[in-house]
Amino acid sequence: MKYKEDSMIAEQKINDYLNELKSEAPAPGGGAVAALTGAQGTALIMMVANLTIGKKKYAEYEELNVSVRDQAQEVLDQLIRGIDEDKEAFEKVSEAYGMPKSTDAEKAARREAIAIASLGAGTAPLAACRAARRGLQLARELLGKSNRNLVSDLYVSALNLNACIRAAKLNVLANTPYIKDRELAELMEREVQEISEEADALSGEILADAK
Amino acid sequence: MKYKEDSMIAEQKINDYLNELKSEAPAPGGGAVAALTGAQGTALIMMVANLTIGKKKYAEYEELNVSVRDQAQEVLDQLIRGIDEDKEAFEKVSEAYGMPKSTDAEKAARREAIAIASLGAGTAPLAACRAARRGLQLARELLGKSNRNLVSDLYVSALNLNACIRAAKLNVLANTPYIKDRELAELMEREVQEISEEADALSGEILADAK
Repeated sequence: MKYKEDSMIAEQKINDYLNELKSEAPAPGGGAVAALTGAQGTALIMMVANLTIGKKKYAEYEELNVSVRDQAQEVLDQLIRGIDEDKEAFEKVSEAYGMPKSTDAEKAARREAIAIASLGAGTAPLAACRAARRGLQLARELLGKSNRNLVSDLYVSALNLNACIRAAKLNVLANTPYIKDRELAELMEREVQEISEEADALSGEILADAK
Repeated sequence: MKYKEDSMIAEQKINDYLNELKSEAPAPGGGAVAALTGAQGTALIMMVANLTIGKKKYAEYEELNVSVRDQAQEVLDQLIRGIDEDKEAFEKVSEAYGMPKSTDAEKAARREAIAIASLGAGTAPLAACRAARRGLQLARELLGKSNRNLVSDLYVSALNLNACIRAAKLNVLANTPYIKDRELAELMEREVQEISEEADALSGEILADAK
């Protein structure tokens, strides 16, 4: 039941979501914001493709735009799931920190629960990073090969996807120190660093002609 | 009737908003995305303040956090209004471009309508820029004077507000060339440039210690 309720942020009204976000409830927080920021950027890529497809002027890019649109839908789905995944993962971390710590056995169980929950809280934003990077690659593919009147929407998509990646990266790095498997934690840190560098390069390319 | 329907994006479900965004309807587009991206950043500032207020550890910053939270609510209201204002302004530009242009009189009327609509389509994102800059100033005020556990949410707020300003700036500059009053257009261009430079400096300060 709890899972079902929790997994419905995207079914909330925008106003209700913003009210919950600003409240003293610790979740949703920065992780959900990152995912929705990236989801908006991805939806903009789809809008640009949709307003290119079927136009005679861009006939030579028709196939590319259809393909990008379909791939962007997958990215969008992933990021919409990410809004909830991050919230749920965060709540598990909070629960773990709230566990009793009076006896040595309790302390050990709590530490173990924090380590497990931190792994989840690190992988959720890592998945968002990966999806948003794919989004940036798709935006890059449309540059110069889509409706010229909407190029500023491609620019905005790059701004949003890059902000998503930077924010999600912070959330990965906030959790990796508590992951027990140090080798895995370092792999995650390295991957998120690489994604973030690639994202800077990609959004730099996309925004090169923006004012 | 039209106005009422149009002014309700924030009353839509997130999923419905994203579906409309990705569709071949040209609005909502990048301007609405910029405003909602900034609104999320502002809501995060309020969350950080709300999770600081009442905590003994931060008693000395209680007043500051209450004040920042109340001011952030005004910024949030402005940005939520901005989601719709941008969409409406954009639709007026589209309508103007769709006007008949067979006779000289029609051409003149169309040109006049485009100039008037472009002014609206430039001032809507300019208002979003101003509000988001205020948001960044508020985030800066909370840095080091709010719940330390939530500092990464302040970082995310800076990322979102800066992305909002950069995107809104693009939308201002996309419209100013068509504004008839050239002096006003140049004032707008200068203001948005100044805001964007200040925003880069502010978010740089806020994110200085972020990984």
